[in-house]
Amino acid sequence: MSERITITEVGPRDGLQLVANTVPTTAKLAWIEALYAAGIRHIEAGSFVSPHLVPQMADSAVVVSQALALPGLQVYGLAANLRGAMAAYEAGAHVIVIPLSVSDRHSRANVNKGTLEHIDAIAQLIEWLRAQPRAVRIDCVAASAFGCSISGEVALADVVGAAKALALAGADRITLADTVGYAHPALVQSTVCAVQDAVGQRLQKLHLHDTMGLGIANALMGLQQGIREFDACLGGLGGCPFAPGASGNIVTEDLVFMLESMGYSTGIDLAKLLSARQAISPYLPAGTLRGGVPAAGIPASYRPATAVAVG
Amino acid sequence: MSERITITEVGPRDGLQLVANTVPTTAKLAWIEALYAAGIRHIEAGSFVSPHLVPQMADSAVVVSQALALPGLQVYGLAANLRGAMAAYEAGAHVIVIPLSVSDRHSRANVNKGTLEHIDAIAQLIEWLRAQPRAVRIDCVAASAFGCSISGEVALADVVGAAKALALAGADRITLADTVGYAHPALVQSTVCAVQDAVGQRLQKLHLHDTMGLGIANALMGLQQGIREFDACLGGLGGCPFAPGASGNIVTEDLVFMLESMGYSTGIDLAKLLSARQAISPYLPAGTLRGGVPAAGIPASYRPATAVAVG
Repeated sequence: MSERITITEVGPRDGLQLVANTVPTTAKLAWIEALYAAGIRHIEAGSFVSPHLVPQMADSAVVVSQALALPGLQVYGLAANLRGAMAAYEAGAHVIVIPLSVSDRHSRANVNKGTLEHIDAIAQLIEWLRAQPRAVRIDCVAASAFGCSISGEVALADVVGAAKALALAGADRITLADTVGYAHPALVQSTVCAVQDAVGQRLQKLHLHDTMGLGIANALMGLQQGIREFDACLGGLGGCPFAPGASGNIVTEDLVFMLESMGYSTGIDLAKLLSARQAISPYLPAGTLRGGVPAAGIPASYRPATAVAVG
Repeated sequence: MSERITITEVGPRDGLQLVANTVPTTAKLAWIEALYAAGIRHIEAGSFVSPHLVPQMADSAVVVSQALALPGLQVYGLAANLRGAMAAYEAGAHVIVIPLSVSDRHSRANVNKGTLEHIDAIAQLIEWLRAQPRAVRIDCVAASAFGCSISGEVALADVVGAAKALALAGADRITLADTVGYAHPALVQSTVCAVQDAVGQRLQKLHLHDTMGLGIANALMGLQQGIREFDACLGGLGGCPFAPGASGNIVTEDLVFMLESMGYSTGIDLAKLLSARQAISPYLPAGTLRGGVPAAGIPASYRPATAVAVG
């Protein structure tokens, strides 16, 4: 049996939040169904933020609640404050994703709160979620953990401090996010090691961007350090309003190709994953979707670890 | 002192050979000078092949001989047969690069000879070079070492066999080339290990393409296996006539960013390297040059290992 890797497709959230034209709810749902048909079982379906700030996410409650109909799909919803967490809970999200920027200046730009103040708010938010009748998983994200477009380098001690604080606040799991894509493999190695030392197995996932062309190499280093969960976006969608030129998240198709080729099982059928692009591409500007495997096609030498049903 | 990594810029050869419009000789030389000014000291300047087959390389003798004027620059010339090796020698190349396709079918498509027959021809070619008054370094390349667009998988035993045969034929150094870009990190690891076992330190370099988006991750794995030399192309130029959709070589700018960030010294000034794009971009179709760092710019957090002169 090959070892299992969990890929969470964050395209419907991180991938679309910066797209200029609004994608219809029906198209989002058709896209989620196509991703599900390819074997993806973890989807970040929306973000519960102000529709004035991120109009693309105004229908997140509908998208999340409709996505719940797909059997076995884990539906994630992002929330940055209590109001958002309440809405995500009400919509029925299985997992509530809560970002905290390790960079104080990035935090202020993003949520109008410094990092410490935001941790306090997150602790209250988690307390509220824990008091509800339905159990949800709470994934906290240490964002800007590998650098910040505003303040440059981010101190490792601050990343470790943020991870510990999020664990103390009650996070089930912690994700390290390279929000602006400044990470390199040596930094991934040292940061993952230090955070594992601090919070152990609670560090589960990496969220990587491909800004400097190193996203997949950073994922490889994370894999070597024991990380078994990754966020990714179909076609490398996404970006960050505070990182001009950022080229989006790591490409789900290329990540699946790498992991499956290396003998890790993702449960994802690469050919069907490539087809899932058709569900969203008509709603995006030409050239928005990128990726190596989609451009070149699946090579004849591809031997996936995941057994693919014939027919 | 940080450990040294040698990057050979292969843009003037591999990068241009598929470009539709012919780049003037003066532009190639200006580009080589700009690369040199950025600190690059290893450049594959041309290919000594039939100008009917690769018209872009018709001026290789002029480009190589002019590039010799740059102090300390190691000038590489590629040759696939004796006639080409003679021409590369006459032009004054310091290093003669000789490709051999490990895939028999790719070899026949490329040089109209099977792999075994071509090894025999290479042995004769090396004998000729060794008999000349001027000493040259001979770098043999095991091409299609990680897969072939014609025959799919390439057997590891064939790669090891080809490397041994090239060593026996008298190659000073051996490069493993992922000609069509089908490699993944696990394959890089197993192949590099097996070839190191077979030919030891004579395996020096990896030549990687980014077809599946894994080029830089593959370079990272090579680095972890002890490889200290890499080919790369400014802006990720290049491709392979037998790999439709192939997106070119690994991007020199992104590779330098990764290596320097990780504490390896390349001797290359990243800002000047980005400027070197201006010397060639007017001669290329729009959008030909790609790369993460060039699109996003050098982040404020960049701390190169190579000491850069101020001013």
